[in-house]
Amino acid sequence: MSEPSALLIAGGTVVNEDRSVLCDVLIERGKIVEVAPNLQAPAGARVIDATGKLVIPGGIDTHTHMELAFMGTRAVDDFNVGTQAALAGGTTMILDFVIPQRGKSLLEAYDCWRGTADAKVCCDYSLHMAVTWWSDQVKEEMRTLTEEKGINSFKMFMAYKGLYMLQDSELYAAFSQCKAIGAIAQVHAENGDLIAEGAKKMLSLGITGPEGHELCRPEEVEAEATQRAITIAQAVNCPLYVVHVMSKSAAKVVANARREGHVVFGEPIAAGLGTDGTHYWHHEWAHAAAFVMGPPLRPDPSTPGYLMDLLANDDLSVTGTDNCTFSVCQKALGKDDFTKIPNGVNGVEDRMSVIWEKGVHSGKMDENRFVAVTSSNAAKIFNFYPQKGRIAKNSDADVVIWDPNMTRKISAKTHHQAVDYNIFEGMECHGVPVVTISRGRVVYEGGQLKASPGHGRFIHRKPFAEFVYKRIQQRDQVGKPTAVIRKPYEGKVISV
Amino acid sequence: MSEPSALLIAGGTVVNEDRSVLCDVLIERGKIVEVAPNLQAPAGARVIDATGKLVIPGGIDTHTHMELAFMGTRAVDDFNVGTQAALAGGTTMILDFVIPQRGKSLLEAYDCWRGTADAKVCCDYSLHMAVTWWSDQVKEEMRTLTEEKGINSFKMFMAYKGLYMLQDSELYAAFSQCKAIGAIAQVHAENGDLIAEGAKKMLSLGITGPEGHELCRPEEVEAEATQRAITIAQAVNCPLYVVHVMSKSAAKVVANARREGHVVFGEPIAAGLGTDGTHYWHHEWAHAAAFVMGPPLRPDPSTPGYLMDLLANDDLSVTGTDNCTFSVCQKALGKDDFTKIPNGVNGVEDRMSVIWEKGVHSGKMDENRFVAVTSSNAAKIFNFYPQKGRIAKNSDADVVIWDPNMTRKISAKTHHQAVDYNIFEGMECHGVPVVTISRGRVVYEGGQLKASPGHGRFIHRKPFAEFVYKRIQQRDQVGKPTAVIRKPYEGKVISV
Amino acid sequence: MSEPSALLIAGGTVVNEDRSVLCDVLIERGKIVEVAPNLQAPAGARVIDATGKLVIPGGIDTHTHMELAFMGTRAVDDFNVGTQAALAGGTTMILDFVIPQRGKSLLEAYDCWRGTADAKVCCDYSLHMAVTWWSDQVKEEMRTLTEEKGINSFKMFMAYKGLYMLQDSELYAAFSQCKAIGAIAQVHAENGDLIAEGAKKMLSLGITGPEGHELCRPEEVEAEATQRAITIAQAVNCPLYVVHVMSKSAAKVVANARREGHVVFGEPIAAGLGTDGTHYWHHEWAHAAAFVMGPPLRPDPSTPGYLMDLLANDDLSVTGTDNCTFSVCQKALGKDDFTKIPNGVNGVEDRMSVIWEKGVHSGKMDENRFVAVTSSNAAKIFNFYPQKGRIAKNSDADVVIWDPNMTRKISAKTHHQAVDYNIFEGMECHGVPVVTISRGRVVYEGGQLKASPGHGRFIHRKPFAEFVYKRIQQRDQVGKPTAVIRKPYEGKVISV
Amino acid sequence: MSEPSALLIAGGTVVNEDRSVLCDVLIERGKIVEVAPNLQAPAGARVIDATGKLVIPGGIDTHTHMELAFMGTRAVDDFNVGTQAALAGGTTMILDFVIPQRGKSLLEAYDCWRGTADAKVCCDYSLHMAVTWWSDQVKEEMRTLTEEKGINSFKMFMAYKGLYMLQDSELYAAFSQCKAIGAIAQVHAENGDLIAEGAKKMLSLGITGPEGHELCRPEEVEAEATQRAITIAQAVNCPLYVVHVMSKSAAKVVANARREGHVVFGEPIAAGLGTDGTHYWHHEWAHAAAFVMGPPLRPDPSTPGYLMDLLANDDLSVTGTDNCTFSVCQKALGKDDFTKIPNGVNGVEDRMSVIWEKGVHSGKMDENRFVAVTSSNAAKIFNFYPQKGRIAKNSDADVVIWDPNMTRKISAKTHHQAVDYNIFEGMECHGVPVVTISRGRVVYEGGQLKASPGHGRFIHRKPFAEFVYKRIQQRDQVGKPTAVIRKPYEGKVISV
Repeated sequence: MSEPSALLIAGGTVVNEDRSVLCDVLIERGKIVEVAPNLQAPAGARVIDATGKLVIPGGIDTHTHMELAFMGTRAVDDFNVGTQAALAGGTTMILDFVIPQRGKSLLEAYDCWRGTADAKVCCDYSLHMAVTWWSDQVKEEMRTLTEEKGINSFKMFMAYKGLYMLQDSELYAAFSQCKAIGAIAQVHAENGDLIAEGAKKMLSLGITGPEGHELCRPEEVEAEATQRAITIAQAVNCPLYVVHVMSKSAAKVVANARREGHVVFGEPIAAGLGTDGTHYWHHEWAHAAAFVMGPPLRPDPSTPGYLMDLLANDDLSVTGTDNCTFSVCQKALGKDDFTKIPNGVNGVEDRMSVIWEKGVHSGKMDENRFVAVTSSNAAKIFNFYPQKGRIAKNSDADVVIWDPNMTRKISAKTHHQAVDYNIFEGMECHGVPVVTISRGRVVYEGGQLKASPGHGRFIHRKPFAEFVYKRIQQRDQVGKPTAVIRKPYEGKVISV
Repeated sequence: MSEPSALLIAGGTVVNEDRSVLCDVLIERGKIVEVAPNLQAPAGARVIDATGKLVIPGGIDTHTHMELAFMGTRAVDDFNVGTQAALAGGTTMILDFVIPQRGKSLLEAYDCWRGTADAKVCCDYSLHMAVTWWSDQVKEEMRTLTEEKGINSFKMFMAYKGLYMLQDSELYAAFSQCKAIGAIAQVHAENGDLIAEGAKKMLSLGITGPEGHELCRPEEVEAEATQRAITIAQAVNCPLYVVHVMSKSAAKVVANARREGHVVFGEPIAAGLGTDGTHYWHHEWAHAAAFVMGPPLRPDPSTPGYLMDLLANDDLSVTGTDNCTFSVCQKALGKDDFTKIPNGVNGVEDRMSVIWEKGVHSGKMDENRFVAVTSSNAAKIFNFYPQKGRIAKNSDADVVIWDPNMTRKISAKTHHQAVDYNIFEGMECHGVPVVTISRGRVVYEGGQLKASPGHGRFIHRKPFAEFVYKRIQQRDQVGKPTAVIRKPYEGKVISV
Repeated sequence: MSEPSALLIAGGTVVNEDRSVLCDVLIERGKIVEVAPNLQAPAGARVIDATGKLVIPGGIDTHTHMELAFMGTRAVDDFNVGTQAALAGGTTMILDFVIPQRGKSLLEAYDCWRGTADAKVCCDYSLHMAVTWWSDQVKEEMRTLTEEKGINSFKMFMAYKGLYMLQDSELYAAFSQCKAIGAIAQVHAENGDLIAEGAKKMLSLGITGPEGHELCRPEEVEAEATQRAITIAQAVNCPLYVVHVMSKSAAKVVANARREGHVVFGEPIAAGLGTDGTHYWHHEWAHAAAFVMGPPLRPDPSTPGYLMDLLANDDLSVTGTDNCTFSVCQKALGKDDFTKIPNGVNGVEDRMSVIWEKGVHSGKMDENRFVAVTSSNAAKIFNFYPQKGRIAKNSDADVVIWDPNMTRKISAKTHHQAVDYNIFEGMECHGVPVVTISRGRVVYEGGQLKASPGHGRFIHRKPFAEFVYKRIQQRDQVGKPTAVIRKPYEGKVISV
Repeated sequence: MSEPSALLIAGGTVVNEDRSVLCDVLIERGKIVEVAPNLQAPAGARVIDATGKLVIPGGIDTHTHMELAFMGTRAVDDFNVGTQAALAGGTTMILDFVIPQRGKSLLEAYDCWRGTADAKVCCDYSLHMAVTWWSDQVKEEMRTLTEEKGINSFKMFMAYKGLYMLQDSELYAAFSQCKAIGAIAQVHAENGDLIAEGAKKMLSLGITGPEGHELCRPEEVEAEATQRAITIAQAVNCPLYVVHVMSKSAAKVVANARREGHVVFGEPIAAGLGTDGTHYWHHEWAHAAAFVMGPPLRPDPSTPGYLMDLLANDDLSVTGTDNCTFSVCQKALGKDDFTKIPNGVNGVEDRMSVIWEKGVHSGKMDENRFVAVTSSNAAKIFNFYPQKGRIAKNSDADVVIWDPNMTRKISAKTHHQAVDYNIFEGMECHGVPVVTISRGRVVYEGGQLKASPGHGRFIHRKPFAEFVYKRIQQRDQVGKPTAVIRKPYEGKVISV
């Protein structure tokens, strides 16, 4: 079947972050060309009936690790399978991470990752860059990446001691460079020293199972690093983005900092919003190991609801997944030692449904806030709004038709990801994507994927995102400290 | 000069809450008909050059009391002068209050106030209704006002004991009725019993000057009532709007409630954002008296900055003024007894500039958040978005051309209000409205007002605003408590 | 067997709030006459070996309702049985409440209650007075009670609408009188209006079981009233004592107020520290009903641990029980309507063990803090320290020998109370009283009670307790507000 | 004049932390031998009339640096002058710091400092040990110091990068060793990396004066490190003592941690309680430089009152001074560069009066809490209670007769310290020590010092202070994490 020249989504309720309205949406050449009531379908157009359904901007997953080589193995969702799963779940763009090894060139790692992804992705994507070591070369490459390669976000690790972890003085330097080039600094916020000590301690106590993973890095370890990162960023007046906020106490740190005026964004993930860390105490090892990720899910069962409250209230801003999937036989590398269990969980397919269920269906947020936290805010922070993140004339035609009344049950048996379990197994979700459109093409419909590898494009992102940098720059201008004007001291000076 | 058939605002940066973009704006028949780059001016159109300037939605002042009869006298800004001042300051709509006397009909008071205002207003306006007593008649009239008269917000007083104050059980009843009819409950949150006792105490200590006004009702009295109102509203699952949040502690109560998921909105006002209560201790009586309003401005000088931080962070939502102006000779009714000083300050003209200066110029918020808190959020909460509050096709042409680089110095000598002082006297403000357009007509330009009484229209507002009620209704649906299913107790029962 | 002329407790560790020390304790004529190492037993003395055990001040239960007539029936623990149970649990003094009916004389109620108790009590006791209505007579009787009858604490109800509840203005008046006569104001802090409405609502939803009791008065209702009481007390500069702090949010209100310098004390009770409100959802009605008390226990299972943390940290100050026991057949009065279940739980016997287990054994507090919160602080606040609350020369010989290593399992089958269930049923407790001494007599030993009705005495308490009033009085002296000195306003005054 | 064989302090009010009582105090051979009413003076005894005055335990200054060599010069108060000043102010014991250079033996440094101090001190003293680098030798010497040298407290620096600062992993190791040997870990909590960067930045902006000292290390830098230290200590379950808590935000961190149950103590100092950092902006260089210390005093003028509120409420525990005095000509070493101004202020003489004035006279705390925070708590934490810190039989006769009604004005002209300014200059204080007794000898009386160098003794302190370690040890015992018991995973394992 040949592609229709145009798509008309008719009869649905268009949901943007600021309001919902009954409108049709006309799509041509990969773009939205009109949003208005009662549009006429052009000749050759396909009309999709969205009556009784919501028409929302495609989801943007801010945090994935497709086919990442990590802890001796490689994540099973590659860019092809992973983006197909994304589309099946209503997500039309992912932001993945380039993670160069210590001492290696960032630019080379970037080229390598583009080379891997470009041909495989079934939806648009972009890349964050990890800064895993520090040198003048790194600093210079950051500038090149921002000016020439479409990167405006750099992640620094405060954990993974000996592997990726930076010292405070290196964080200061990296944040300073982000500020200079107009990028946003991202942090994995956990105290790596404490984790290293904690892991040794748990093993010495004979705790080798997945519960040891959480016990060795309780939430204080996350909250501490979050506070530290915010303090360092503030010293530089650099915008900060905290990836995977996993605990109530870390989330509170972010929320309080925002209340005090810090330009900081917190990203909870599907796993943290939809399940919790009690699973680490599950009596079946494979079950427990499936949930191992860093930072861990928290055993306090009130955590997901609390994170959702903060997400609803804009104390937290956007949502990702940290999708980094290892099948059970891979997790089993750590069967006798939790420190060897590859870290990572699924989420790229189920994020939208999980947030709808726990956020919208529960009444914590409305559908407009849902769009903000699953799509618009990501586009603003990472500077491709309103190209994406909004149903509006001239925006990319990344659109999802969402049925808020339909339900589905999440299961590894039916999901589209490569991994052989699902941390949300059995969760009944209201809110189901019935049609997914990527760049104007219907890629998922009636439960069928119609995506093709290489369809997606890399989204170049410019520095100095206005959403992030307007306040930063104004503060630089008006907030500079000044010296007290004094007569010189003319008294005696002791001789040393 | 005859009116041009169309206006084209060319070359400016259109600022909406979600982003800023270089665009032209075409206006015809009182509406915005196009927003796009490089528009052609239709024949007969007037072209206004906005190069280098911002094109923003006209300000909406959520809280005014024009020509209110209060404390033995009447506010000097009537609907004519008051709305002209508004326009001169970049505000194109006000929401005033109908305040019926105890025991009197709400409908009659409404008719009376419409009768007063309609012929005088130079910009669009709407009305909140005060509920100053409680009865079945009041309850019924609330429904009529909502269904037929365009009112969807009702204010209850927790202060002004013996005059307007309701008891907790009456608040519960009034909130319940608001919920039933889809209105938003508003409260003046101060503990009226404590104020009455405090005033007696201060007078007994010989404190008769304006400082007594604050001393008899310190901020704990406001914070307590705010907490109480939120608790009562929560018991009913009714949305709540706290008018004039004046203190750090009350603001914190609102912010914390929002973080916990309560549907509550806090309204700081220009006075509270731009100045503070140290003025009550000014050695000149007339100066000190000018600042008397209820709740009072706070002597803690960190208050305005704190309120602005919370406003920037969406802990507080919208801004009004409580504009209720009494000239010095009226204030002088209380020259020997602070309890007799008519309560009220200016603000309707200067609100936009004060918030720009303290909020945007300071770097606490960006221009987009400025639009949200001065305009869009009010339109959403009170249910006339995007008719107003957004520069978009089909919206009302209430538009302001704002020069962010120009400065002006606020002074009673140059302001357009009727009152003979200005609480912001001498404040240097960046951010000046250079052209104000109301319903498509240029009503202020080059420092000249061109408004005419009766030009404004009353805005009918419908109940169940989606921005407010979506979550409320969803919670009603999914959050209903249920009984435990048990076998009946069959044991012994004591005989009484 | 005749009484020995003296008792020597030898070899134990004497635990006071400030430290523990190996010391002997010599007791004669109802008093402690020496505390020192290696004391010689006088002729005729009985020596009790306390080696390896702790010697602590007898517990003081700040809150009991023995044989209270309430909700159509009467509590089954009378002053005889109730005080025997107290002694068996290591408590040597109780403070009960006189609760006059609305419109009735406080003095008469006092006389009546003394008449009831004096002949029955097996340990020392004192009385708080409830103020259940307001008039000049009540005010005057408060003074008489304080000056002549040994009462320095008055409890006001913010709940029990129509029965005991006072309005805010009456609270203000009552607090003012407490301040004037040097008493401490106590409050039952729940919003009675909201409870009344909540109860109606639950019944209308068909919720008639014990879970309705909590659902109609969730913890916000308690927190609100707590905040309000503190605000009113602050307006009067009156010390405040919040009885039965039952929820995290109310406890936080107390803790924050203390941090801001308010003279306020919070009293958690054994029930709130040892169990939680999930029991209201128990499938067996009689089980669920047993836990009904006001304010209710909270369903959040982290509540007891949180309250204990605050108690350990001196955010909360003392512990009572609200012991007011109704047997199942009495509870059954409300078998079809939770509002008719007599409110009240046990605790007087188990308080000490529950706090030791959850507080000391858990490592949250040490044995010295245990003594403070079970005994010394009560004596200080209610002004009979160090007559009681300390193991010291000249103090009353109310002493308990406590075995921190022994354990016991709480059960209705073995307890000494009259009620036919125990809310702590099955709890394994470390920390057991092995000997209880009241006024120098061994009244409990080896699991046997040897108490006799009328042995206890009424403890007269003087006003203006230093622990409470020193700061209050100093603040009155240095914190008085003063008027600004100004030239009179000489300008125009509008004529009205 | 020969010494009397005994002293009888008659007619005063003996103030201990738990209560005040009219009592006489009899002193013989350096000890208190009796505390009781109406004591008879033994033959040869001197009777001191304390009628109308308070008899309090001598003050204990937890934090001094007498004659410290620092930043190229040496503090002018040596152990002789410094302890004389202490006595004149009502302080009878100091705890000074041994600070070995990086790479140097702790034991040698200890011997050296004992050698310096023993012959000079006019009152009792003890020593904390600084751990300024890390090695097995250091670890071993810590044990020796604790077991043999009377040291049970070790201070680690998180600031002074390149000089004293430890990394997080070193802090972890040092805290672990403290825990193992029963010592309390102390921290100077500021982020040294941020200070180093901040100082460079300020100098680069041309800010060379004392204001730069605060600007380069704002309070977030202190709060961050405080949070980090608490997190690390918690990971080890090691008790923590935060020296010189200088800011509201750091104090809040300590207070919140205590509320959550952490065994952490915060020490505000006289400077922070009595004055603030606005002085750094003083137009006169020498004035501004006098206040330079690290962490700096804070420019927020509400800081001292806030710290005092927390001290009153036991959120902060004890008070020191960080007395480390450099005269103006020494401060002048940094006249062109604030980083070269020797850090340090006075306080050892005025601490008691400053705390009385701001704490007791203001009504924030009572006289009993005053004794706790100036004396008893220090003795408990550092494990020499009740040898000191209490007026009780068998305690050391370190006693002060305090006149709460007398006032004095602090001034460099009249103080007994060697430094040529006083940061409290001009402060009028209620509360004056009229007689100071050290080890039973009257050493200050009628404004005259009668002290003699070498009179003081070094106080050996034992490890595992019960006040600190009881909870720690109990938690170790009951809180050990345990492994989940599982069947081994028998499934497939990927081959790497």
